Amino acid sequence: RLYHILEAGKTTDRASLIFDVSMTLLILANVVAFALETVEDIGTAHAVWFDAFNLASVAVFTVEYVLRLWVCTEHRPYARLGAAGARLRFAATPMMVIDLLAILPFYLSFLLPIDLRVLRVFRMLRFFKLARYSPALDSINRVMWQERRALGAAIIVMTGALLVSSTLLYFIEREAQPEAFGSVPAAMWWSMATLTTVGYGDVVPVTVAGRMVGALVMLFGLGMFALPIGIIATGFSHEIHRREFAVTWGMVARVPLFANLDAEQIFVVMGSLEAVTLPRGTHIAHAGDEADAMYFIVSGEVTVERGQGALTLTEGDFFGEIALLQKARRQHTLIVSKDTNLLKLSADDFAVLSRRHPEIREAVLAVARERA
Amino acid sequence: RLYHILEAGKTTDRASLIFDVSMTLLILANVVAFALETVEDIGTAHAVWFDAFNLASVAVFTVEYVLRLWVCTEHRPYARLGAAGARLRFAATPMMVIDLLAILPFYLSFLLPIDLRVLRVFRMLRFFKLARYSPALDSINRVMWQERRALGAAIIVMTGALLVSSTLLYFIEREAQPEAFGSVPAAMWWSMATLTTVGYGDVVPVTVAGRMVGALVMLFGLGMFALPIGIIATGFSHEIHRREFAVTWGMVARVPLFANLDAEQIFVVMGSLEAVTLPRGTHIAHAGDEADAMYFIVSGEVTVERGQGALTLTEGDFFGEIALLQKARRQHTLIVSKDTNLLKLSADDFAVLSRRHPEIREAVLAVARERA
Amino acid sequence: RLYHILEAGKTTDRASLIFDVSMTLLILANVVAFALETVEDIGTAHAVWFDAFNLASVAVFTVEYVLRLWVCTEHRPYARLGAAGARLRFAATPMMVIDLLAILPFYLSFLLPIDLRVLRVFRMLRFFKLARYSPALDSINRVMWQERRALGAAIIVMTGALLVSSTLLYFIEREAQPEAFGSVPAAMWWSMATLTTVGYGDVVPVTVAGRMVGALVMLFGLGMFALPIGIIATGFSHEIHRREFAVTWGMVARVPLFANLDAEQIFVVMGSLEAVTLPRGTHIAHAGDEADAMYFIVSGEVTVERGQGALTLTEGDFFGEIALLQKARRQHTLIVSKDTNLLKLSADDFAVLSRRHPEIREAVLAVARERA
Amino acid sequence: RLYHILEAGKTTDRASLIFDVSMTLLILANVVAFALETVEDIGTAHAVWFDAFNLASVAVFTVEYVLRLWVCTEHRPYARLGAAGARLRFAATPMMVIDLLAILPFYLSFLLPIDLRVLRVFRMLRFFKLARYSPALDSINRVMWQERRALGAAIIVMTGALLVSSTLLYFIEREAQPEAFGSVPAAMWWSMATLTTVGYGDVVPVTVAGRMVGALVMLFGLGMFALPIGIIATGFSHEIHRREFAVTWGMVARVPLFANLDAEQIFVVMGSLEAVTLPRGTHIAHAGDEADAMYFIVSGEVTVERGQGALTLTEGDFFGEIALLQKARRQHTLIVSKDTNLLKLSADDFAVLSRRHPEIREAVLAVARERA
Repeated sequence: RLYHILEAGKTTDRASLIFDVSMTLLILANVVAFALETVEDIGTAHAVWFDAFNLASVAVFTVEYVLRLWVCTEHRPYARLGAAGARLRFAATPMMVIDLLAILPFYLSFLLPIDLRVLRVFRMLRFFKLARYSPALDSINRVMWQERRALGAAIIVMTGALLVSSTLLYFIEREAQPEAFGSVPAAMWWSMATLTTVGYGDVVPVTVAGRMVGALVMLFGLGMFALPIGIIATGFSHEIHRREFAVTWGMVARVPLFANLDAEQIFVVMGSLEAVTLPRGTHIAHAGDEADAMYFIVSGEVTVERGQGALTLTEGDFFGEIALLQKARRQHTLIVSKDTNLLKLSADDFAVLSRRHPEIREAVLAVARERA
Repeated sequence: RLYHILEAGKTTDRASLIFDVSMTLLILANVVAFALETVEDIGTAHAVWFDAFNLASVAVFTVEYVLRLWVCTEHRPYARLGAAGARLRFAATPMMVIDLLAILPFYLSFLLPIDLRVLRVFRMLRFFKLARYSPALDSINRVMWQERRALGAAIIVMTGALLVSSTLLYFIEREAQPEAFGSVPAAMWWSMATLTTVGYGDVVPVTVAGRMVGALVMLFGLGMFALPIGIIATGFSHEIHRREFAVTWGMVARVPLFANLDAEQIFVVMGSLEAVTLPRGTHIAHAGDEADAMYFIVSGEVTVERGQGALTLTEGDFFGEIALLQKARRQHTLIVSKDTNLLKLSADDFAVLSRRHPEIREAVLAVARERA
Repeated sequence: RLYHILEAGKTTDRASLIFDVSMTLLILANVVAFALETVEDIGTAHAVWFDAFNLASVAVFTVEYVLRLWVCTEHRPYARLGAAGARLRFAATPMMVIDLLAILPFYLSFLLPIDLRVLRVFRMLRFFKLARYSPALDSINRVMWQERRALGAAIIVMTGALLVSSTLLYFIEREAQPEAFGSVPAAMWWSMATLTTVGYGDVVPVTVAGRMVGALVMLFGLGMFALPIGIIATGFSHEIHRREFAVTWGMVARVPLFANLDAEQIFVVMGSLEAVTLPRGTHIAHAGDEADAMYFIVSGEVTVERGQGALTLTEGDFFGEIALLQKARRQHTLIVSKDTNLLKLSADDFAVLSRRHPEIREAVLAVARERA
Repeated sequence: RLYHILEAGKTTDRASLIFDVSMTLLILANVVAFALETVEDIGTAHAVWFDAFNLASVAVFTVEYVLRLWVCTEHRPYARLGAAGARLRFAATPMMVIDLLAILPFYLSFLLPIDLRVLRVFRMLRFFKLARYSPALDSINRVMWQERRALGAAIIVMTGALLVSSTLLYFIEREAQPEAFGSVPAAMWWSMATLTTVGYGDVVPVTVAGRMVGALVMLFGLGMFALPIGIIATGFSHEIHRREFAVTWGMVARVPLFANLDAEQIFVVMGSLEAVTLPRGTHIAHAGDEADAMYFIVSGEVTVERGQGALTLTEGDFFGEIALLQKARRQHTLIVSKDTNLLKLSADDFAVLSRRHPEIREAVLAVARERA
């Protein structure tokens, strides 16, 4: 039970959802408190409150940490290992290390005579506990890892540009501005701000030659930008759409009507289907509306209100086909009776699809006849 | 009638077009007036004119709002509800709320003793009435919504970077520049300006360690950029091209000659066809020109000027095929007699297409023989 | 003749090439002279030289303009119209209007008593005469036009952000910095510099609330960037690759061996072929080299040096197949005897292709047997 | 032997790897030393050490250069030429020219009475020796070359924008700020910083007209950004993925089970397979785990621990199929016995694949029966 609340991830469980939301809020409050405490006025005036809040937070996080460690034996992959082994291995996962770093400094401050101010920095690490709640961060990490070679090349190009530009500016400007361009490392500060198009303006070339080289460096910085974008942006967008694609594919493959389609045909059908998620109680259509689409139920439940009593449709069923086959108006009112995932197939796409796969049209007709 | 003018959206109707253009101009004039009124000199000198203009605008907008509310019962989706219900529901749509917010403050100023200056700000909201006239804004909204999880992850990464960089700079620079880096929130101002590559330069690290961390932050900001671009830019461009794709598909599917092609074949044919929109009176070709393409009429009308009298072709017809089949010159002059949407098929693509689908070539030949 | 030199575009003709290069240099020299003349010191010191150069340039450009107008009757599309009509129509094309604007101010200065300084600005327009020589500018224009609706939406979003941010900052900062944020238009200068991430730093919010709003504006500016990039960047890259695709397709379709493939098959074959352009005299292979590819000649000429005398292959021929069929070493030395466009098919791709299309393998074998 | 260490590129050889890593470190140390030497304090205080380090580096680089030149005759492409010819040709390759430029200035300083400071700049070139070790730099170069025409067009657009904006600002601001906008070249400095969104803020328009034009220039700069990104980013990402695609294709084509698939089918199969690289000693699965995938060995070795003795699988074999066919649990523990490249096929994808290609399912079944 506790394991499910702490680790389940899915927000279907009420207790799990409450836990996740309150932990997120506590983490954010910690980060805000950390930032405010560094403001001299506020930090000293309310020092007691900050300390109390910190103490409470550490307590909560410690309990959380210990509980996570306790229940980790439930984790399937660790079932094989002994309880101690499973816990040790679990404690070494990146998320648990971050959790430990978020609380450890507090305890260390009792043991070691370190400056408290330095320890306080580690409180900021609590923010990274949030990583547990965002699956998209995984995508970013994976993309960074996959593209590490391309990113490395971009860094080499960038470093080369940095070296050339700061060396040139050092030679050109060192007479005119010895304090800003007096050495290559000093010139690098300007180069870096220009190549990344940050452009502080605290250090700026003043000679004609320096400005001409400066203009070239700006232009190069413009092109520079394109490299990480080409790498991260396209990689990231691929990653996201690959995941969406997999989800839709899985939904289509689960509809019995499409069970006999091969991979290529599913791909074609996917283009015509639109995934729709509807909360309980939504009216999909009213009797008498114009019919422009039929629906497949991926999960959930839909009620058809007919004169002769309501019909309940569940996972794998489809509806709305009668009106579509005869280009007529809706005959029944359709209500979502449980939160439902639907695939919507418009009338036009149905026409195209039934021309390509007469057997699908036949199957739809057969069910329609049965229901009539 | 009024309903069509106010809501029709399509600019085919003259009255509707005039209404849309004059409303757009009035909204823009309001925004300019709002901005100018805040300039001390202009605002006090012409206060009377500004008030008069504001009064007139509020009058127009109020009439518009009431009329929209009045005619909304014509709206199909609301036909089911009673007149009052339909109006209440319509008033709750985002566009109507914006319309209300654009005029309400004026009326409130009579009831409540609020500072007029604050109320004036709401006049700026009138700009958002423009949203009604740009369908592309919908695309942007939809993309933002679809990619909300990815954008959330990007914001987490950004916030993490902001926290780490401002904490580091706070520790490094707080001795050297206590007024700029004296607390973490203060250091965040610099971090934010650097991570977004804005780089004001009003606050800049001065120590060697600070500048080294600063250079890393700039570099990270460069990569940072790639995330929203990867999310919004690719999502937005997909959205736009999906819409264009749907339009062309619809046009091809409406040409009788292609009626028997299945989805995959339509897809192949689409690649060869180019959509062309021509205004009335255009000469598509003159007798004697070299023939390099044939055309399919999606909508509109084209006149073929032949010796034995003009031939009028309409939706679904094609022309220009004779010259193409015999690689000859145009025999007739072709004039657009009504605004026309055409699909153009070049000679080369026709050769490829007729090899793949001999039946299309046959059909074209049959019509050509008939016309001769 | 003159027509070909002036308008031919292709750089195959010697005279045409020389003309294009010298015109480009003259235009660039004009632009440099225009910029330098505005530098007080240089402008007055060498006024005579600048005037002489300007006079000479205007003379050359005038001759060019008159000649273009003279020969435009050669232009096919205008053949129908009379000489005068053709010239009038040609003079109204954008490029000719730019050409006229580049010289007209000089002549006007004799007729009208306008300030010479203002007229001088029009000299800068001579730069745009260069547009004639860059086909890629067409692509950029076309993309801008195609995406005009999306760009319009981006501008509406941007304007909305500009209005909201400058209004907020006006209310927050007008007390603290009346000179910089004293009116909404004044605050717009800061908003604009921040939203575009330019970030001059000449105007910066100083209050805490102003900085918090400022940080949000920076973040929004980051997302802002993604819109034009999503529109222009992807549109532009599509446009470029569409053109390349068309070129390769045309090359493949011209190879007799692939004449019987339908559109879809050509598409598959295209993926395996690599376009190679080789100057005259290149040794493609030496007898005894390992063979890893065969070649198709799209245009040009290749000589095969055999013991029994050289064999000359031209457009539509292929070579290198013997070694490939038997995975052996090259038997002959292959030399390019005229500038040649080749399509290269690697050994691996040939294996895949011949499994899919045994008839291609047969045809290659037949030719190989013949040559042996 | 030496040839392999120096040029082999692949890091499979131990000596080669050590050589590459130590050369990389030496190059980086040189660059750091070069930068530090320009800092007045450090440069003079440790002048002796810097000179010694430089001397040592030049010695190492000279030996490296001579060795490379010596062994280059091993290089296949040069086998045909004589030893001297091969060496001359090799010395003219870009990498060898960089190597020469990195050491030559040191020797020249003995012959010519040039200022030592200028010569020192060339030390920075040693950084580019690193290019030898990053294959991704090739991709960047190739993309730049392929897109040279599009980049040229972008530069023309940029230059046009630069000219127009600096000319306008020159006319508008030259009265107000004669020192910053006193001539067109001076105004260009501002234009460049604004168009590239660097925005130093050292020069800023102050008049109302100047700021309005400035805002337009910023907006144009925003669009400007999209061009190189459209060109470089998409080109670069295509290039990278084209290479990855080729690698995966090669791996799939080498699996005997897929040998009879044609190009199109391999393409479909590729989408279902995931490339996995596992170091020696990894446990792929334990007996009793749930089975969710089967694996194909591209290279390396995997040991199946069965009761009746271990089974060793090598290149071209597959495993994990039994559990998959019967949706059961793993029967054996699978251990990687050599560094291995695997292709992973998930249970779901296997189901789809075996419906499309029953012969693959048959082949898998046959092997499974054999092993049982």
